[in-house]
Formats: sequence, structure tokens, C-alpha cells
Amino acid sequence: ARTGDPEVIYGAGKTPEQVVELLRRLRQAHPSRAALATRLGPEALAAVRATFPEASISEDAGVVTVGPLPQARGLVCVVSAGTSDARVATEAAVTARAFGAGVRQISDVGVAGIHRLLAVKDELDQADCLVVVAGMEGALPSVVGGLTGVPLVAVPTSVGYGASFGGLAALLAMLNSCAPGVVVTNIDNGFGAGVFAARVARRARRDGGAR
Amino acid sequence: ARTGDPEVIYGAGKTPEQVVELLRRLRQAHPSRAALATRLGPEALAAVRATFPEASISEDAGVVTVGPLPQARGLVCVVSAGTSDARVATEAAVTARAFGAGVRQISDVGVAGIHRLLAVKDELDQADCLVVVAGMEGALPSVVGGLTGVPLVAVPTSVGYGASFGGLAALLAMLNSCAPGVVVTNIDNGFGAGVFAARVARRARRDGGAR
Amino acid sequence: ARTGDPEVIYGAGKTPEQVVELLRRLRQAHPSRAALATRLGPEALAAVRATFPEASISEDAGVVTVGPLPQARGLVCVVSAGTSDARVATEAAVTARAFGAGVRQISDVGVAGIHRLLAVKDELDQADCLVVVAGMEGALPSVVGGLTGVPLVAVPTSVGYGASFGGLAALLAMLNSCAPGVVVTNIDNGFGAGVFAARVARRARRDGGAR
Amino acid sequence: ARTGDPEVIYGAGKTPEQVVELLRRLRQAHPSRAALATRLGPEALAAVRATFPEASISEDAGVVTVGPLPQARGLVCVVSAGTSDARVATEAAVTARAFGAGVRQISDVGVAGIHRLLAVKDELDQADCLVVVAGMEGALPSVVGGLTGVPLVAVPTSVGYGASFGGLAALLAMLNSCAPGVVVTNIDNGFGAGVFAARVARRARRDGGAR
Amino acid sequence: ARTGDPEVIYGAGKTPEQVVELLRRLRQAHPSRAALATRLGPEALAAVRATFPEASISEDAGVVTVGPLPQARGLVCVVSAGTSDARVATEAAVTARAFGAGVRQISDVGVAGIHRLLAVKDELDQADCLVVVAGMEGALPSVVGGLTGVPLVAVPTSVGYGASFGGLAALLAMLNSCAPGVVVTNIDNGFGAGVFAARVARRARRDGGAR
Amino acid sequence: ARTGDPEVIYGAGKTPEQVVELLRRLRQAHPSRAALATRLGPEALAAVRATFPEASISEDAGVVTVGPLPQARGLVCVVSAGTSDARVATEAAVTARAFGAGVRQISDVGVAGIHRLLAVKDELDQADCLVVVAGMEGALPSVVGGLTGVPLVAVPTSVGYGASFGGLAALLAMLNSCAPGVVVTNIDNGFGAGVFAARVARRARRDGGAR
Amino acid sequence: ARTGDPEVIYGAGKTPEQVVELLRRLRQAHPSRAALATRLGPEALAAVRATFPEASISEDAGVVTVGPLPQARGLVCVVSAGTSDARVATEAAVTARAFGAGVRQISDVGVAGIHRLLAVKDELDQADCLVVVAGMEGALPSVVGGLTGVPLVAVPTSVGYGASFGGLAALLAMLNSCAPGVVVTNIDNGFGAGVFAARVARRARRDGGAR
Amino acid sequence: ARTGDPEVIYGAGKTPEQVVELLRRLRQAHPSRAALATRLGPEALAAVRATFPEASISEDAGVVTVGPLPQARGLVCVVSAGTSDARVATEAAVTARAFGAGVRQISDVGVAGIHRLLAVKDELDQADCLVVVAGMEGALPSVVGGLTGVPLVAVPTSVGYGASFGGLAALLAMLNSCAPGVVVTNIDNGFGAGVFAARVARRARRDGGAR
Ligand SMILES: Nc1ncnc2c1ncn2[C@@H]1O[C@H](COP(=O)(O)O)[C@@H](O)[C@H]1O
Ligand SMILES: Nc1ncnc2c1ncn2[C@@H]1O[C@H](COP(=O)(O)O)[C@@H](O)[C@H]1O
Ligand SMILES: Nc1ncnc2c1ncn2[C@@H]1O[C@H](COP(=O)(O)O)[C@@H](O)[C@H]1O
Ligand SMILES: Nc1ncnc2c1ncn2[C@@H]1O[C@H](COP(=O)(O)O)[C@@H](O)[C@H]1O
Ligand SMILES: [Mg+2]
Ligand SMILES: [Mg+2]
Ligand SMILES: [Mg+2]
Ligand SMILES: [Mg+2]
Ligand SMILES: [Mg+2]
Ligand SMILES: [Mg+2]
Ligand SMILES: [Mg+2]
Ligand SMILES: [Mg+2]
Repeated sequence: ARTGDPEVIYGAGKTPEQVVELLRRLRQAHPSRAALATRLGPEALAAVRATFPEASISEDAGVVTVGPLPQARGLVCVVSAGTSDARVATEAAVTARAFGAGVRQISDVGVAGIHRLLAVKDELDQADCLVVVAGMEGALPSVVGGLTGVPLVAVPTSVGYGASFGGLAALLAMLNSCAPGVVVTNIDNGFGAGVFAARVARRARRDGGAR
Repeated sequence: ARTGDPEVIYGAGKTPEQVVELLRRLRQAHPSRAALATRLGPEALAAVRATFPEASISEDAGVVTVGPLPQARGLVCVVSAGTSDARVATEAAVTARAFGAGVRQISDVGVAGIHRLLAVKDELDQADCLVVVAGMEGALPSVVGGLTGVPLVAVPTSVGYGASFGGLAALLAMLNSCAPGVVVTNIDNGFGAGVFAARVARRARRDGGAR
Repeated sequence: ARTGDPEVIYGAGKTPEQVVELLRRLRQAHPSRAALATRLGPEALAAVRATFPEASISEDAGVVTVGPLPQARGLVCVVSAGTSDARVATEAAVTARAFGAGVRQISDVGVAGIHRLLAVKDELDQADCLVVVAGMEGALPSVVGGLTGVPLVAVPTSVGYGASFGGLAALLAMLNSCAPGVVVTNIDNGFGAGVFAARVARRARRDGGAR
Repeated sequence: ARTGDPEVIYGAGKTPEQVVELLRRLRQAHPSRAALATRLGPEALAAVRATFPEASISEDAGVVTVGPLPQARGLVCVVSAGTSDARVATEAAVTARAFGAGVRQISDVGVAGIHRLLAVKDELDQADCLVVVAGMEGALPSVVGGLTGVPLVAVPTSVGYGASFGGLAALLAMLNSCAPGVVVTNIDNGFGAGVFAARVARRARRDGGAR
Repeated sequence: ARTGDPEVIYGAGKTPEQVVELLRRLRQAHPSRAALATRLGPEALAAVRATFPEASISEDAGVVTVGPLPQARGLVCVVSAGTSDARVATEAAVTARAFGAGVRQISDVGVAGIHRLLAVKDELDQADCLVVVAGMEGALPSVVGGLTGVPLVAVPTSVGYGASFGGLAALLAMLNSCAPGVVVTNIDNGFGAGVFAARVARRARRDGGAR
Repeated sequence: ARTGDPEVIYGAGKTPEQVVELLRRLRQAHPSRAALATRLGPEALAAVRATFPEASISEDAGVVTVGPLPQARGLVCVVSAGTSDARVATEAAVTARAFGAGVRQISDVGVAGIHRLLAVKDELDQADCLVVVAGMEGALPSVVGGLTGVPLVAVPTSVGYGASFGGLAALLAMLNSCAPGVVVTNIDNGFGAGVFAARVARRARRDGGAR
Repeated sequence: ARTGDPEVIYGAGKTPEQVVELLRRLRQAHPSRAALATRLGPEALAAVRATFPEASISEDAGVVTVGPLPQARGLVCVVSAGTSDARVATEAAVTARAFGAGVRQISDVGVAGIHRLLAVKDELDQADCLVVVAGMEGALPSVVGGLTGVPLVAVPTSVGYGASFGGLAALLAMLNSCAPGVVVTNIDNGFGAGVFAARVARRARRDGGAR
Repeated sequence: ARTGDPEVIYGAGKTPEQVVELLRRLRQAHPSRAALATRLGPEALAAVRATFPEASISEDAGVVTVGPLPQARGLVCVVSAGTSDARVATEAAVTARAFGAGVRQISDVGVAGIHRLLAVKDELDQADCLVVVAGMEGALPSVVGGLTGVPLVAVPTSVGYGASFGGLAALLAMLNSCAPGVVVTNIDNGFGAGVFAARVARRARRDGGAR
């Protein structure tokens, strides 16, 4: 990992023992750096909690950080609509924080209730980078992108059924966004969006320049 | 065709001569009924104009009606965002009118400029059936569907490139709309949407019932 | 939810406790309005039955309503062919009723036995909106659409195997229907079809106008 | 080619000169056997007409036979709905005749006008093998297959647009037909269906056995 | 079911109790006709065996017949390559027999061992209809179709992994067979192939005509 | 357009006259702001050159700017491999400049010649945002992303044939990049990448922070 | 290019002038090395012939070599079935020769005429590497791979229509070949197969080892 | 199996008893030849270990060989990046060894850490055939293919999620590799790659010729 970045464990397909052992080694080798683990199931989360009482755990999102987080520079704002997409949004938020950005998370602003979204426009404008998470038709990034000129990373999720095809519908929608300047990650890839957004935010001048 | 419905010609793949000849026959056989022809190219449009000076022609959309339109009952409102989608929107509007509904057409209200859309909310609410046309990410029906409870038919268009895959992205988005009660037609099928919407509108009580 | 519409819970991915708790809250907040819950498994259904003895439960379809249904205006007719598609058809029927329409359900009329279908033509003609549910090749809406001019919502189901690709074959067939005025929902989305059809039906003049 | 079968030329991608030259050689080498050429464009058809005045030419379908056709045994019935599918239906009919079966062709019986189809049920029952050609939603074979127990070969065509995806929608529909005993060819492959149906028909007992 | 055809139960998704109950009813209603049940799991097979000791059971293929089979007319020959495809091949063979054809089954002749296939050419030529079952690359029907002029029904199976995409690779291969006169069923649809082949075989003149 | 952003014309599907007329109007309405036009064919480029002698034209990429460019803040570096991808890379570069960023363009560094890429590592590190353009297998962003921690926008192109499927192969590769923090645009969407990268770059502190 | 390898020009999308100019430069820079150009249209071929009278030209395949070919080591055998696939097969053959292997080309051995294939088994066994080219169902490599243990590279072509989907059917078939040790290139990529096969052949011991 | 090749068992879908019984029979029938079994789960591996204490077992890859391996001729080098791809890489390595080649396995050289890859360039150059295994974006073969002229077989794996679509992304990337002379196997097909690579390696002259 680059200076200041956390060490990272991708938990999918790993046993709780493997996760705990990896975290232990990373903490020992890099005591001054946080370790981030994503995609943990309930057993792995329990094992981490038992072994590292100081760990910061996002239960529903299956994400943990252990060790000192870097100082926060810049601001990432993570936006999502429903409880189903929250898991991915939180993965993005925790990741962005662990990679050195300040983070604000706004949930429950969806395209079908446009007024709640208009009400948070100021918060969106204050961010250095936005992460917008949506499943099903994946329309949220287009609407947010029309409201603000802040760099916007769209994350499609696999939430949906039938012709959602595991998130393909949302992915294609986001790639075709009519709002200029929307970029996209893999389906459910909150981690990648968090890394990218943190890199953007922590380089940003606090005044945002003349945008 | 059912009583009151126009006779219809699908012009794609037909020569100007075939189109004109078919229109002539339909006019002769059913003098009291309009004839509708869609998907006409410039040559076919010119031939129709020369032969039927009384024809009503939508140049850009390649649609014509010849003969007396039925009395308008109920109101269909056709909504679209950009000039590229206008062709399909007009096909829907002319079709709905020819099938006996009153029609209002609103262009240039897209998801990336949400305020223009909010400004027409009252007009949307007055309709008996909405037809919402959009290409690229196909997000417009979700946003409109969140603003109003009027029955809404979404029409994906093939406008876009790359991962739009000829309208597939918009089609999938609309099928997965999080706004309940959105139904969908084939890509670019303004005609089908117009027929359906007219059927809904001309049956509607003018007060709309307690919706 | 709009005035007169029920409160809705999407049960997929929710625990029985969550479903019961949500129903309880919705009933308390809106005593005069029904609550509708869809996609419930056997455990959730049992929990609902135990907690709300007055609940109306469609066992096989995993759908329940609790509380007073709105007065029925207009008529939705839900048509399907086999027992496999019945689950989705019933989801549509219960939803349409909860959203304020009268409902008639006709099962076991398929394309491979066309005479049973011809025998119910009158019942189809009396409806204000049709919902036609079919899996496999999804041919039923085309045949029904050829028999009647009533607005028709087609619902593809995931019933089938192999080249059905989880309902994709039926979805594509319905989108390409040669019967004009067929509109389509997502695969297995009986709920969406029910909402849409109810909106159409409850606005309809009882005479249907000069269709 | 097997005894009694014609020699065959696939004209797509061949120049008029190549087609004529191939026909000449085949006629010379096998004077007692017909030569069949498919997928010919207007120029190739004109060249064939000029060179072989005795040729039997199906203009619209781009199919020709030159030389003595074999005696007809058994009966193939080719069914299609619209003028757009007629090209493929005629390719099947001419091929079946050239491969030694008697042929009857029924056009303009589609799923959206079910009564015309019921009116020809007797003719369907008299065939030894049916070829049913349909584009768009590809529903016709399911309906025909429900009316009769005659072996049925379904041919999807590329007629359609948008979510027809070049005939994929019709192909998938036919593969998923709920009528048992429907088999399918490649999109637009009237030739293959004609060969197969002729093989079935010319082996059939004229009484058809106790089916 | 047509005269002489068996009653049929599609076992997938049915409980052992439902299967046994359905068989009981069909046997009672039609004592002179066989009942065929396909896609049965081990429990359903055990329940059938316990209830109908006279049942004829194909354990691995999950297929049973109960009651008197019709007299065999004509000959269907079912060909497959490996043990993985045998389940589908046997479904086809048992179905063809229950629908009134004589049946011969040849296993373990694949494209990668062409000499075993050449050794059975005479048996292939004697059939009135061939059913050729293959997974993975689905090449077998093309090779068999090149060896014989007997009508040939190809059945793709879902055997394979990776880019087999659940049988799609074999399905596409068979639809594109360069051997003329190959027709295709849905993936794993041994039942449909058996019905079709029996219909062809039982109509065939025993001499096969001058093929 | 936001303050400081140029006015933009999407030239695809527009006649040379329409493009020139639009440019004229935009120049008149916003004399202090540049106008950017993309996707222009040879005729449109010639018309622009004739009408606006001061226009800056990228011939091969079909991109022009007319009017005063904004002051450059921050640095975007656009990287591509071959001459085929250059068109898209230049669209990104010109767009980023027109949207207010400084731009450096590096061509001809591909994955199959890794040493040329290593030689420019310092230039990559100096950028505030990278745009990496690649067709065919789309591997370049993963390799670049492994070399540097600068925010990286990947642009798949439609360069390739066969299983490239119009850029789908490159798009999927980039979405699955194992280098963390790679985000992706639509196929051939150099414009979108340029807008996004400019927004990131012009907000960046010149020292880049402690990255 | 590596020592002994030719210089290569990919002609698709290049003007005749560009091709000739590139060839001239490569010949000048590397007089002792051949230059290979692929995917040339008729005009480019004519221009090459006029400029380089000594060029070796494969007219139908659009391939030329100019300059001294390397000494041939090892033997590549290129196998294909029909005239439509010959273009790709010849591209592979010329490429393999230009990359330093001896080449034998066998045309017109297809899966539907298995005896012609058996007749050339000895020639197949003598090769150091096989290139097997096939379109449509792509079955040829499986059959050849069952006959011989020589390393085999399969090349799918875009020959076919309908469900061939531009060569996808053949590609998937080859990837799923039941013959072990079949490897695959992109659709129509005779060039890649030729390069690979030459690399294998020119390293081979002439006795082939104990295979 | 050919002389010198091992007997092979494909373990997927077989019970531990079946695997052990098959191994026993193969060992008895061919005592001088190794038996190779792939795709074994933990139970089957335990059963093999208990029955054949002399077996050579690759636990994680689910691969075993029993009996004397052939003498190693030539050198196959198997390259992969991460622990997730190791299973497939080891299947290739064990297979290549069992088919008579010497094998070297290099793990943990990925595209995102290009320097580790450059460090092993000499080892790559010494091989007679390379097998390069990669999931996700499948970029590794392109980079390796740019470093060396050794024949290279690319194996895509199903490692990934979302738009990886079960390995499709990596498969398409490898088929479109810009490095000439890359050939590809089915997704996860380490076995096929091992067979092919061994055939190439064991025929190779030890000096590799003048490559
Ligand atoms: N069967 C269904 N299919 C699709 N959407 C549904 C279904 N049932 C309910 N919904 C939607 O899900 C929303 C409630 O979701 P939730 O808040 O997760 O319970 C409702 O407002 C409906 O729009
Ligand atoms: N319309 C058609 N569709 C598919 N295959 C055809 C068609 N017409 C002819 N064929 C096949 O093409 C072969 C002749 O191809 P060719 O030698 O290229 O003329 C015949 O033997 C047939 O198998
Ligand atoms: N190359 C491009 N690709 C995608 N979108 C573009 C491109 N160039 C311009 N645009 C978008 O097209 C809009 C202008 O479209 P129009 O009004 O049709 O000229 C701009 O606001 C951009 O958002
Ligand atoms: N027929 C072909 N298919 C794919 N790639 C090719 C072909 N012919 C040449 N190439 C590649 O194209 C490169 C030259 O591309 P270019 O510089 O555009 O002429 C060569 O180095 C080859 O790798
Ligand atoms: Mg959403
Ligand atoms: Mg839009
Ligand atoms: Mg059905
Ligand atoms: Mg049809
Ligand atoms: Mg096979
Ligand atoms: Mg590249
Ligand atoms: Mg072939
Ligand atoms: Mg990788």
C-alpha cells in the first residue's frame, strides 16, 4: 500500500480464522496504519470483534477497520436511496475514510422522491467528490449529476430482480448517463468507489477552486 | 381495425408507391376513418404530400394522417427530453390522437434539469395517461413516476452509443423502475405506446375519479 | 403512499419479525388504510397469520393484506395459463384490489388450448384493464390482444428452463408483440402490473366510452 | 446430394456470374435432377431468368429451381402470418418441393387474428409435416401446435426491431413453446426447415397412421 | 392428450405427494392409457415405486411410466455421447416409447471418437427419426447429420462449465449446424424431442419410402 | 453550462449547417466562453474552418473549439496506446482543456511494450487526474493503475473485431480492473472522461497533498 | 518485431496509400526481413501489386508478403471446410509461413463429410501444430482433435447468419470442445493463429518426440 | 488415452466412491501409466488419500495423480497472480506434468505490480510453453505476451464479481489480446491448458530453435 493508505483485506471466500490472522499480521507489520477488511460475513465479524475489541465495525455492510485512521482531508459524500443499497454505500464510506478522506453519508434520497434530494443540494455541493449508489434502474446518478458539478462516481448495485440481471441494468444506465462527467465502477464495488473518491478528495483545495 | 380506430400502415421497408397506393385504398374503403402511416422516409413523405394535399404530416417523425380524425376524448400527455427522442415522442403523440385521444406534448424536460420537470407537474397531473420517452440511461420515467400517480407508459429509444446497445440500456432501466406502476414498450415503439395510451385515455372519466 | 393507496412492504429479504413489525407500524400510523405485503415466505406468512388473525392471505402467492380494503372502482381482469404462473397472477390480483380496483381472475387459459380462451372473450371485454401473465414463450398476451381492445398489461414470468433464461424469452416475446397496445412489466412483477392496472381501472367510466 | 435430392446453391455472397455458372455445371452433371438456388438478389435472379428460361422463380423469396422436380410424396404445409415473413416461408416451401414433398402454403394466419387460423385447422391436420414461420414474438407455432398433433417445425425470422434483436426474441419464444413437440431451426432458415419437413413427409404413410 | 398419447406430469417443483396423487388420478381416469412423469427427484421416485410396484422407472433420468404402453410403431433412435448427457437421452427415449414409437438407444458415441460412430451407421439409417443429444460444444448432430439422411432432432444439454453458459454454446452450435435438416429443441428438453420424434416415427412407412 | 465551462455541441447526426449555426449562436450569446463541438465529420469540420478561421481543430478526432479557452488549472494526463485509439484520446484531451484543465497527452504506450510505459512514470505521477484510453482487451488502465496512485479514469474504445463486440470486451475488463480506484466511462466516451478529469484537476491543490 | 519475425501491417481501416507507404518504409528499414500485410481490400491489393511487382499476393484472403521469407522450420497444417472459411484459413497459412514455419493447407474437409477428413489423417499427424478454421457450428476442431494428438489451434469465423451472432456460436463451441487440448483465438483471427502455430512449429524437434 | 498420456477422471459431479473405484480400475488396467483426477472436493480427496497413500495430492486445487509419472520432456511454465487463481493454475501445472512435461509454477506476479513480473522475465523465456492464468480483467497474458515470444496459452478464471459475469470479462479480454500469438481456453479450464502446453513442450527442441 502507498504511504498513508490502509492495508486492505478482501474477505469474500476467506474463513474467519484467515481474516483474523491476516489482520493480526498487518497490524504487527504496520502499527501506525489502519487495516481495512471488507465483505465479511457474521462469523468473521464476530471473530474480529472478539480479537480486536478496538475495531470499528459496520455490521450490516460487513466492513471493519482496525488501528488508527489517517487524518481526514477533503470531503467525500456518499449518497444512496434505499436500505438495500446501504450495504454498498457504507462499504464506500468506510473505505473513503480509511483512505484518508472525510466522509458524509446521506441515505434515503431516491429518484422517486425528488424533493428529499433537492433538500440536500447544499450538502452535495460542499463535497469534493460524490459517490452515488443505486440499484434497480440506476437513475440516481443522472439526477444528482444534473444538480451539481462536483465529480461524481456512480456505483451500480445488484439490488433488483428479473431484468435487473444482477445489476447489469443499473450498470448500463450509469454508463449511459446524460449528465456529463459521471464515471462508473463495477457492480457492488463500494470499495473501489471509496478508494477513488478519497484520492480525489484528499488532493482537493478546500475552496474547491473556481469550479 | 376496431370501430373508431384508424387504419394503420407501417411504412418501414415499403416503397413510396406502395405507401401511397395503400393509403388510397384505405381512404376509399373507409372514407369516414383516418389512415395513419408511420416510419416514412423523405421520399415517401413527399409522395404522400403530392397525392394527399390535405394530409397532416410530421416531417421529422415520418408520420402522416390522412382523413378525418376521431373526436378527442380524454388526454394523453407525451413527455420527452431531447431533440433526438422527439421523433419517437411525436410518433406516440400522432398515434394517440389518431386513436381518439386528446394529446399534449412536452419536450425538453430531462432528468439532468429537474427544475423544468417540476415546473410542468400540474400538466402531468391533468393527463389521463402519460407516455414518457427517453434514450440513453432511460431515467426519465422513474422521476416522472415519482411526481405523479397518473398511469405511465415508458418508451425506451435507441438514442445513445456504446453500452447503450441500441436502446437496451434504456429498456432495462425502465423495466426496473423503482416508481411503481411504470409499464414499458419495445425500443422506439412510439406507435404502440400511443395506441395503449389512447385506449386508456378515451375510457377515462373526465374527473379522473378519486385517484 | 397517495390517498387511497395502501401502504406496501416488499417482503423479499426481510425476516418474519421485520415484516410483522413493519405491518404493525403501518397499521398504527394509517388505521383507515390497508397494508399490503408481497413476496413472503412460509415463515413470514405464519407470523402474519398469528399476529393479524384478520389478515387476508394468499398462501401460494406469498401476499397478504391487513386492514380495510378501499371501495372497488372499475374492473381489472387477471389472466394466466398454468399453475406455475398463478403465483405472479395472484400477486397482481391482490395488488390491484388493494389499490382500489375490482378484480376478476381467470386461470388456466393458455395458447395451447385456444378454445378455453375464446370461451371467456366476453369476460375479457368487460374489464377496464387486463393483466396477462405468462412464462415460457410468453405468447398469451399476443393472442388475448388480438381478441379484445381493452388496455393490456403483459407480465412475463421466470417459469421455464434452459433457453428461457430466467424469463428473458417471455419478456422479449411480450415486448415484440404483434398485437398493438401491449405494454410490459419486469419479469415476475405482478405487483407493478397490479398497481398500474388499478390506476387505469379506477379512472375508467363504467360504460368504457366508445372504445 | 442423396439420391432424389436436388443439388443446392447458397446464393448469399455469390456474384450473378458465379450463380449461373454453378447452375450450369450442376445441370450438366446431373441432368435428371433439379438444381435449387436460394438467397439470390435481383441481379442474380435476372441472370438466371436470362440463362434458364425454363427456371421456376420465386421473385420475392430469391429462390429458383432449374430442371425436373422429383415426384411429390407426402404433404408439407407451410404457414406464416404477414408479408414480411413470406420470403422465408416461400424459401421453405420451394425447398420442400425440390426435396420431393408435396407442398401447400398458407399465408396471413397470425396470432392476432385467431379466427382465420381456426378456419384452416382441417388443412393443417391433413399435412404430414408443418413448417410455421413467424417473426417478432414468434407466438404462432405455440398456437398452431395447440390445434394439431402434426409434427411441427418452427422457423423464427429476423422480422422486427428493437428488442427483437435480429430474430432472437422469436427464436427464444419458439424454443420455449409450451406446445409439446415443437422443434426449431436457425433464424430465417427456411431452407433447413424445408429439407427437414420434406424428409419427414416423403416417408409418411398417406393415412398418417393412428396419430 | 390426443388419442393414444400418454398423460404427462412434469415433476419439477412438485412434491412426491403431488406426483403420486396426480398419477393416481390419471390412472383412474384413463385406465387404458399410460401415464408418464418426468424430472422426478429421488424422493418422488421412491414414492412412485412404493405406490405403483408395476411402474417402469429410469432411475438416473428421473422418468417413470405407469400403465400399459401403446403398441410401438416406427423406430426412434436416440444417440448420445457421455454419461452426463445420458439423463436427457433417456428422458427422450422413454418419452418416445410412451408416445407410441419403438425406441433404440445408443450411448457413448461422441465426436472425439469418430470410429465408434461410423460403426453404428447402419443402425442410424434404420431409424425413422433420430434424436441426438449433446452438451459442451454440441457437435454430435452435425457429424451424425453428415452420415445419414434420416430426420434428425438435436437436443442441447446443460452439461459443461464456463463458456458453456448453461447449454447456450451447444444450443447455438446446433442451430447453426452445417448439416441440412437438423432441427433443435430447448436445452435439456429430452421430453419435447421424444414427443416430436414419436410423431414422426409412428407416421412413417416401414420401408421409409425412397429417401 | 456552469460558470467557466464551455458550451457544448454533440455533432453526431447534425448537418454541417446545423453545427455552424449552433456554434454561431453560442458564440454570440456567450462571447467570453469557448464553444466545444465533438463528433464532427469531414464536411462539418470544413464548414467550421470556413466560418470560424480562428477555430482550433483536431482533424482526426473530429473536435473543435471556438473562442477563448479558460485559464488552465491543474493537470490532466491522457494516455493511449495506438493510432486507432487516438481519436478518443484526443476528444478527451480537447474536452479537458476546454473545461479548464491543463492537459498533457501521451500516445503509443501500450501493455505489449511495458518499458515505454515505465519510462513515463514520472509524467503520470505529476498529473492530478489520468485518463487512460484503450480498446481490444482494455488492459492498459490496470497496468497504469498499478504504477501510480493518481485518480484514473478508464475509457474503453470500440477498436477491435470479433469477440470485442464493439468495445464490450474492453469495457468489462476495465470494470473488473484489479488496480483499486479505476473508474470507467461509456465506450468511446472521451468527452465524458474529459469533463470528469477536468473537474477533478481544477480543484486539486498544486502540491497534490500527501497522497 | 523479434529477430526472424516479419514486420506486420494490419490493413483494416488504412487507405491504399497508407499501406503502400508503410510497406515501403518497412522494406527500407529491414531489407533482410519480409513484410506482411493483412486485411487488404481490392484497391490496396492493386496498389501493392503495382508498387511491389515481386510481392506474393493471396487475392481472396487480402494478404500479401513482400521481401524474403525466412527459412521454413517445422510444419503447420491449416485445415478448413468451405470456401467461405478459406479467407481466414489463408490468412493463417500465409502468416505462419511469414513467421518461419513450413505450411500445408487442406481445404474442404468438413464435419458433414467425415470420410474426406479420415482420408487426410496421416497429413494431420505429420504436422507440428494444426490450425483448424470453421464457422457456423464450429464443430471441426472437436472432430480433428479426436483424430490426432498434435497441438491444435481452433479459429472460429464469422461465417453464418442468424443465431451465429457474428461467429459467437462457433467461438463458444470451440471453447467447450470435448477434445482435450484445443485452444482458441478471436473470431476471424487467422493472423493470431498463424503467429502462434509458427512459434510452436519452429521450436519442434523434427521427430516430434514420443508424443 | 494416447501412449504416454495418463488416464484422466473429471471429478465434478462424481461421488468419492465413484472416484476411488474409477482410479482403482484405471491403475489395474494400466499399471505403468499415471492416473490423473481433477475437480475433487474435500471428501473425494480424503477418500483418495485413504485408499492410495502413495497418491500425490494438490489439496487446494482438488487434483491428484496416482501412479508413476512419465519422464519430463520440455518445460511448461505456469504463471498466475493471486491466491484465488492458484487453484486453476495448479490444475494446469499438475496436468502438464502428468502429460509428460517438466513444469515450473510462478505465483503472485500480477499486472498491478509490474516489477515482480519483469524480475522473472528470464524464467519465462526459458519455457517451451507458457500457461498464464488470470481472473477479473484478464490482463496478465497481454503483458506477459509483450515480454516474451514463447507460445502462450491464456486461461481465464471465474474469479471476480459483478460485471465479471462468471469469467466472461477475462475470457473476452484474452481473446482480444493485442499481444500476437495468445491463444485461449475455456473459463477455469486449467486441465485443457495443461494438456495443450505439455503437447507443445514435449515436442520442443531443448534449444528452442532460433525463435
Ligand atoms: N412484489 C414486488 N415487486 C416489486 N416491487 C415491490 C413489490 N412489492 C412491493 N414493491 C415495492 O417495494 C416498496 C417497499 O419496499 P420496502 O420499503 O423495501 O418494503 C413499495 O413501495 C413498492 O414500490
Ligand atoms: N438458405 C439457406 N440457408 C442455409 N443454408 C443453405 C441455404 N441454401 C443452401 N444452403 C446450404 O448451403 C449448401 C451449399 O452451399 P454453397 O456450396 O456455398 O453454395 C447447401 O448444400 C445447403 O446445405
Ligand atoms: N462526444 C460526446 N459523447 C457523449 N456526449 C457528448 C459528447 N459531446 C457532447 N456530448 C453531450 O451532448 C450535449 C449536447 O448535445 P446536443 O444538444 O445534442 O448538441 C452536451 O451537453 C454533452 O453533455
Ligand atoms: N489480421 C489481423 N488480425 C489481428 N491483428 C493483426 C492482424 N494483422 C496484423 N495484426 C496486428 O496488427 C499489428 C499492426 O497494426 P498496425 O500498426 O495498425 O498496422 C501487428 O503487429 C499485429 O499484431
Ligand atoms: Mg434506485
Ligand atoms: Mg434521458
Ligand atoms: Mg405460456
Ligand atoms: Mg408473428
Ligand atoms: Mg459433446
Ligand atoms: Mg490495448
Ligand atoms: Mg463448419
Ligand atoms: Mg488479474
